[in-house]
Amino acid sequence: MVEIRTPIQIGEAVEKVMKFARFGEVEEIKLEQAYGRYLCEDLIADHDVPHFDRSGYDGFAICSKDSLTASSHEPVVFEVIEEIGAGYVGTKEVKPFQAVRIMTGAQMPDLCDTVVLLELTREFEQDGKKYMAIERSYQAGDNVTFRGEDVKKGNILVPNGTYINPGVQALLATFGYNQVKVVKKPLIGIYATGTELLDVHEELEPGKIRNSNAPMLHAQIERVGAIPYYFGKLADNFEDCYKAISNAINQVDLLITTGGVSVGDFDYLPAIYEKLGARVLFNKIAMRPGSVTTVAELNGKLLFGISGNPSACYVGFELFVRPIVKTFFGSKKPHLKKASAILQADFPTPISFTRLVRGYMSFTENGLEVIPVGFDKSSMVSTLATANSLIILPGGQRGFKTGSSVDVLLLDDAEGSEWPW
Amino acid sequence: MVEIRTPIQIGEAVEKVMKFARFGEVEEIKLEQAYGRYLCEDLIADHDVPHFDRSGYDGFAICSKDSLTASSHEPVVFEVIEEIGAGYVGTKEVKPFQAVRIMTGAQMPDLCDTVVLLELTREFEQDGKKYMAIERSYQAGDNVTFRGEDVKKGNILVPNGTYINPGVQALLATFGYNQVKVVKKPLIGIYATGTELLDVHEELEPGKIRNSNAPMLHAQIERVGAIPYYFGKLADNFEDCYKAISNAINQVDLLITTGGVSVGDFDYLPAIYEKLGARVLFNKIAMRPGSVTTVAELNGKLLFGISGNPSACYVGFELFVRPIVKTFFGSKKPHLKKASAILQADFPTPISFTRLVRGYMSFTENGLEVIPVGFDKSSMVSTLATANSLIILPGGQRGFKTGSSVDVLLLDDAEGSEWPW
Repeated sequence: MVEIRTPIQIGEAVEKVMKFARFGEVEEIKLEQAYGRYLCEDLIADHDVPHFDRSGYDGFAICSKDSLTASSHEPVVFEVIEEIGAGYVGTKEVKPFQAVRIMTGAQMPDLCDTVVLLELTREFEQDGKKYMAIERSYQAGDNVTFRGEDVKKGNILVPNGTYINPGVQALLATFGYNQVKVVKKPLIGIYATGTELLDVHEELEPGKIRNSNAPMLHAQIERVGAIPYYFGKLADNFEDCYKAISNAINQVDLLITTGGVSVGDFDYLPAIYEKLGARVLFNKIAMRPGSVTTVAELNGKLLFGISGNPSACYVGFELFVRPIVKTFFGSKKPHLKKASAILQADFPTPISFTRLVRGYMSFTENGLEVIPVGFDKSSMVSTLATANSLIILPGGQRGFKTGSSVDVLLLDDAEGSEWPW
Repeated sequence: MVEIRTPIQIGEAVEKVMKFARFGEVEEIKLEQAYGRYLCEDLIADHDVPHFDRSGYDGFAICSKDSLTASSHEPVVFEVIEEIGAGYVGTKEVKPFQAVRIMTGAQMPDLCDTVVLLELTREFEQDGKKYMAIERSYQAGDNVTFRGEDVKKGNILVPNGTYINPGVQALLATFGYNQVKVVKKPLIGIYATGTELLDVHEELEPGKIRNSNAPMLHAQIERVGAIPYYFGKLADNFEDCYKAISNAINQVDLLITTGGVSVGDFDYLPAIYEKLGARVLFNKIAMRPGSVTTVAELNGKLLFGISGNPSACYVGFELFVRPIVKTFFGSKKPHLKKASAILQADFPTPISFTRLVRGYMSFTENGLEVIPVGFDKSSMVSTLATANSLIILPGGQRGFKTGSSVDVLLLDDAEGSEWPW
């Protein structure tokens, strides 16, 4: 029997799913494991940075006003009274026309406000004393970073929910976060359905194909920062399917089934959702590929029934699962980032449902350009390897011409967006 | 004593380093561990895809020429002779005006060339036989993917050296790569030098700072796909330093020291390089930050002496170490990708050396725009957290104005470039 399915718009579908987005739990890990995770606490400065006036270069600390008359014709000479290595502190008072040899990063002596680069001085000794001469004037602050100039103590430097990139990692180290509170990685279960599916190691048979969606989802789940768990293939009868899925739900944070949710007689999922008492949020979206995408909710836990078609599976994950995982991590920009690009091909065919066409976007002299990476029959897995974007071709149009401006969703972007729809 | 250092241009420095780029070794891993690695073999199609004519949707397989006269006024009726589920093969010969109920992904019956979507048919029974009627005509190939249409057997689908993203992962699965040959991750050693450095767990002291470069490099090394190994802080005397470094070199694929390579009296590295018999490729680059960057080579192994200043350290890694690691993986685009963007701030100061200013790049209606994320005093670590690009301000200019077009290097880009200089 054909079930009646009413398609809803993509934005509406995302909205329905996002109502069940929730934050994850905290776990504490060591700093050296923090790269690629998400902060579960604000990163706060425990001290001014620098917490002392700091030399930016190797050279001589002086008082800038002593340099005012210096020129190549009339160099100004300073007596060098001591040396300060990085990590050490000066011991002598610096008087007019005295200088202190100082290393990059070392604490400035009191009264000095300028560092003259070593290369710009001439050093000499006379009567057992050290001197250096300069041939130009300096202003207060030249080559010095003043206390608190970079960061003030108590400032929130990086908010809760931020992705820990190398820069954040450096900040965590600077402020003594030897242990870091991060969001636990959610566990995402995968079930593949379909009697046509062979395992990767199996030989091909007539009518059958190897299961590529589960490995693809596995990688997509890793890319988004979660932990994939592949349960295997679902059995071919209702009772076993039902048992498998109701068991799986309790073991994971969310569950994806791929395949078997098309409009077909062999699809047990609607009945399984019903028997589980899960509420179906929608079962059809006005988009291609992936129109037959079902999302259900059971006690706040989401069950994604994604089409077995590789493109639809890929797109379904990125549009619906990705923002749930990113929100779990506390990201304020959980969705794919949208940009405008110039289309480099014609789409002469009128389309009814919005199409998401795999594209390759590049930066050119004319700005962003995007070209489709295949005819985009939705079964074509090969083009997924080179796509770095999804071209959005809104439904209800008569076609698109080379040179049109189109919206694209960026697949490799790290930052994300608040709401691209 | 001041060592004489002759600055070279950035491109020249990168070139000198890249002469020692080499490919890595192969290791075989399981498919489910392959995400994020680099292929060490070409990915070749072991069969046509699809390897049978395949239905793209749930519906009815028919012969398109039978549909030619169909309209809403005069529907054409087909007798439904059997059903083919995905993974099964038809058993009956399809005669004119007969149809076969077919699932998405199933093998098309011989003689059928079209699939009519289930939703676009009206089904009924009569005299114990099943029928369906359609109200429009179809063309051969509608909703069918023909054998080999996506991929031909024997094609190289993804070359050696490619990053394994979810799409590549799906292809590996499709073509039976249960085990995948990937490039071994190189091991990169880190030594921090500097008496001013405290460990992350230590309390601050006058003149000292916590070591943030080693954790930052740790994350940068992970981001580029290699394995970081932090050896710790170098001792404060020549002999111990020498022993530590000559020991470390034998344990890693390349070694980074950060700090202590500035033009200063406390810097043992030049002498250590000399005693090791390492050849210094350059020790000064016409750029800020990071002008004092030394790279040496010992029996083909690279030793990177990067400034202890956090910005210089960050930039030095991305410009010089990253392409070495990416080439190790076989990438043909090992360098940071360059794009053009509109500058959103003034730089009134004339600059002599090329400056690499941390920026935040965004996609706007006007194209790519970039704004500096701090004054970019090179000691400022806090801005590294939000930077997604490095703005290139070429040396020898009198300044830059808002609205100028500038080159930027993208930090979060996955693809890279062949040569941005």
